[in-house]
Amino acid sequence: MPAATTLYQTLAGEIAGLIDAGTLRPGDRVPSVRELSRAKSASVSSVLSAYRVLEDRGLIESRPQSGYYVRTAPLGPAEPARSEPSPAAASVEIGEFSVRYTHDTHDPRFVQIGAALPHPDLLPTAKLARSIARMGRLRRLQSNSYDLPVGCFVLREQVAKRMFKAGFAVGPEDVIATTGAQEALNLALHAVCSPGDIVAVESPAFFGTLQALEMHGLKIVEIASEARDGMCLDALKRALGRHKIKAVVATPTFSNPLGALMPEANKKALVEMLAARGIPLIDDDVYGDLPHDGLDRPKAAKAYDRDGGVIYCSSVSKTMAPGYRVGWIVPGRWRAQVERFKMVSNVSTACLPQLAVADILANGGYDRHLRRIRAAYARTTALMRHAVAESFPAGTRLSNPRGGFVLWAELPGKADTLALYDRARRAGVIMAPGPLFSATGRFRNAMRLNCSHWNPQIERAVALLGRLAAESAR
Amino acid sequence: MPAATTLYQTLAGEIAGLIDAGTLRPGDRVPSVRELSRAKSASVSSVLSAYRVLEDRGLIESRPQSGYYVRTAPLGPAEPARSEPSPAAASVEIGEFSVRYTHDTHDPRFVQIGAALPHPDLLPTAKLARSIARMGRLRRLQSNSYDLPVGCFVLREQVAKRMFKAGFAVGPEDVIATTGAQEALNLALHAVCSPGDIVAVESPAFFGTLQALEMHGLKIVEIASEARDGMCLDALKRALGRHKIKAVVATPTFSNPLGALMPEANKKALVEMLAARGIPLIDDDVYGDLPHDGLDRPKAAKAYDRDGGVIYCSSVSKTMAPGYRVGWIVPGRWRAQVERFKMVSNVSTACLPQLAVADILANGGYDRHLRRIRAAYARTTALMRHAVAESFPAGTRLSNPRGGFVLWAELPGKADTLALYDRARRAGVIMAPGPLFSATGRFRNAMRLNCSHWNPQIERAVALLGRLAAESAR
Repeated sequence: MPAATTLYQTLAGEIAGLIDAGTLRPGDRVPSVRELSRAKSASVSSVLSAYRVLEDRGLIESRPQSGYYVRTAPLGPAEPARSEPSPAAASVEIGEFSVRYTHDTHDPRFVQIGAALPHPDLLPTAKLARSIARMGRLRRLQSNSYDLPVGCFVLREQVAKRMFKAGFAVGPEDVIATTGAQEALNLALHAVCSPGDIVAVESPAFFGTLQALEMHGLKIVEIASEARDGMCLDALKRALGRHKIKAVVATPTFSNPLGALMPEANKKALVEMLAARGIPLIDDDVYGDLPHDGLDRPKAAKAYDRDGGVIYCSSVSKTMAPGYRVGWIVPGRWRAQVERFKMVSNVSTACLPQLAVADILANGGYDRHLRRIRAAYARTTALMRHAVAESFPAGTRLSNPRGGFVLWAELPGKADTLALYDRARRAGVIMAPGPLFSATGRFRNAMRLNCSHWNPQIERAVALLGRLAAESAR
Repeated sequence: MPAATTLYQTLAGEIAGLIDAGTLRPGDRVPSVRELSRAKSASVSSVLSAYRVLEDRGLIESRPQSGYYVRTAPLGPAEPARSEPSPAAASVEIGEFSVRYTHDTHDPRFVQIGAALPHPDLLPTAKLARSIARMGRLRRLQSNSYDLPVGCFVLREQVAKRMFKAGFAVGPEDVIATTGAQEALNLALHAVCSPGDIVAVESPAFFGTLQALEMHGLKIVEIASEARDGMCLDALKRALGRHKIKAVVATPTFSNPLGALMPEANKKALVEMLAARGIPLIDDDVYGDLPHDGLDRPKAAKAYDRDGGVIYCSSVSKTMAPGYRVGWIVPGRWRAQVERFKMVSNVSTACLPQLAVADILANGGYDRHLRRIRAAYARTTALMRHAVAESFPAGTRLSNPRGGFVLWAELPGKADTLALYDRARRAGVIMAPGPLFSATGRFRNAMRLNCSHWNPQIERAVALLGRLAAESAR
């Protein structure tokens, strides 16, 4: 790890860890700049940078003439309360709104603060373009032949290596390349479910997951979830007792839209609870590489898999290459079925994008890249939280994620974010209204915000959204 | 059209057309070299080249001291008889053999004469690689953003232009880019069918189609088909009377594996028959750009569509870029559903391969390329037919396709091509056994051969296959 660029991040992480663990408690004085500088053999400016990060994240505050203290009240609004979905199983009917929303999120006339898009400046696009050019020259025959359904070996090899960082050991033969994580999810559902089966998901859940369930003709049980810890295992356990659940789909690490990080112990308990019942877990880990600085890369739920019952899905769409459509699935004991369905779906994923992504993973400084974007997203997330706290109506609840780049805001009173969507759209701003994230029309008072970007235009858009929300809350 | 390179092909095509139409009949003398040279203001060598093409195709023969004559008997074996599938509807269960077969077709230790692979030397791979490199530089932002599900505009624009050559007029907004034609087929099936529905297909049918039907939980009715004219409309009509058929999937132009070309009148009648009943036709046209030289690009069935009831599926996998996974669908009146299912399946197809393919279609001399490969596949098909006629047991029936690059051979007696597959495999040769092309285990006496390649190794492989077939026929 090149110390010069990241020492301040390491320092910030250590202090944040102490706060998180309760060693440093609200109101406690944190070490003075001079103390920390001496203790860590770090320059004063590194320590000051670290404290600035912690201030941005709302963890500490400076008091004039006195030093830095752990904030007595968390910065800004309270986190959303645990969700309370209906215990009944429901059919999924997302309707046409999701198509309209998708079109709006691609319309350059709008300021986009809803779609979960990584910041274009934080993608190694130029490197990828050079790499795909080189691979087209070097791997001419391979790049334009029908490939095996499992995809390119070099990609699967690099993915297998990275999975070690997510806490589990697999070989290239255990990995199947997919056209993004969305295809991985579809292949997983097809392997373990039949139309009419019931699947449990977080509540709120990513609408791509809900749409996939709808497309497969599956029913859904929404499981109560918390903005900090994700899916509530007590609620899941009750649902398992009540319904014949065929599979569970979850994003245990930085869920979308809540941004929740399920504690390690819960991940382990989740995997064991399902393994004991022979129910597969579909582990969507697309944000797993994006803990904010100061936090280690969390283990995936798959790390606790003992019998191949966890199907792991991920991609580089949030970290590197949304347009290259490269993802993967580690299908556990459904490998044969997934391989077959992949072949029947579209033969294989295009080869050159896989080769380019593999090249960056192998030789492109991907870990350095990750450190850079983790710091950036920690900063933009703190800025967006701050802006929401300032401009949204009092009583707004707001998630406080430790990774990824989405926020979940719940408005007070009888807010209707579908109506708000139209008003904001007329004013040139696109956010993601809450009902997108429920199969049963819940979260009409909530919205998802994308905090991968920060600039004056977005700052104004958040202020505008706050004003509109305040008007509609009245 | 650059006259120098293709005059002989034009001449060959004209004579072939006269023979096809019956103007020149078996035994008739064709114009002498000098006559044709004078009549067409063509060089003697062009005419000689044209006659060589016609000889290769088995249409004419030279008689010493006398000139060229239309062959009295067609070259080689009789064509396969009309297929006679069961009139019942069946579930599709392809089993594991297709996965094993797919692995074998990617194993470089084997000589491949079964898989429908274009010849690598006949793909513009270097051009595509240069193009993808350029597009990565020029379209940096676009190439690495989440795209709309419909895909890149420039590709859809070029596809729309080419569809005019297939006989129908559409705009870019009517086209959705897909990950190959296989994905297009899946999207079409998903848009028009529900699990348990009955779909009619040719018999034999491409196994990718059968597998897609199986994956969607659909039932199948196999329709009698002819090696020359494709799906028999009388048989289809009877099936429509007998079953509640939800959709028809057909490859009217150079079907796979039969290589049949449905006559224009039949295409029109097929579309009208289905339109009258409100039943969608899924028109798989992946070989449509590959008529052998001398034949115009046949119209797609979609050309006769009046009410949006024909869903057109195609790709550049057989002509240009199997490894780029670029195909498209023109979904007619199911556009909204197909767009939505595409989004839910995998968000969108990778952008850069689309941009590279669009660039070749727009600026890469694609028509010149097509003329070259059409001539090449006409020649390799004739050579493969000749070799099969020489080495396979007497009584073998063999298709005589006028486009594409697959042959269908039916062995006499009680041949079992699944057993033959294993014996040939042990001897290092992979062909495609007949039962791959039926949902109900038919065609155990048949096999598909790929004739895109011709070289001494393949010549030996065909001879070996002929010997093994003769042994097993005894």
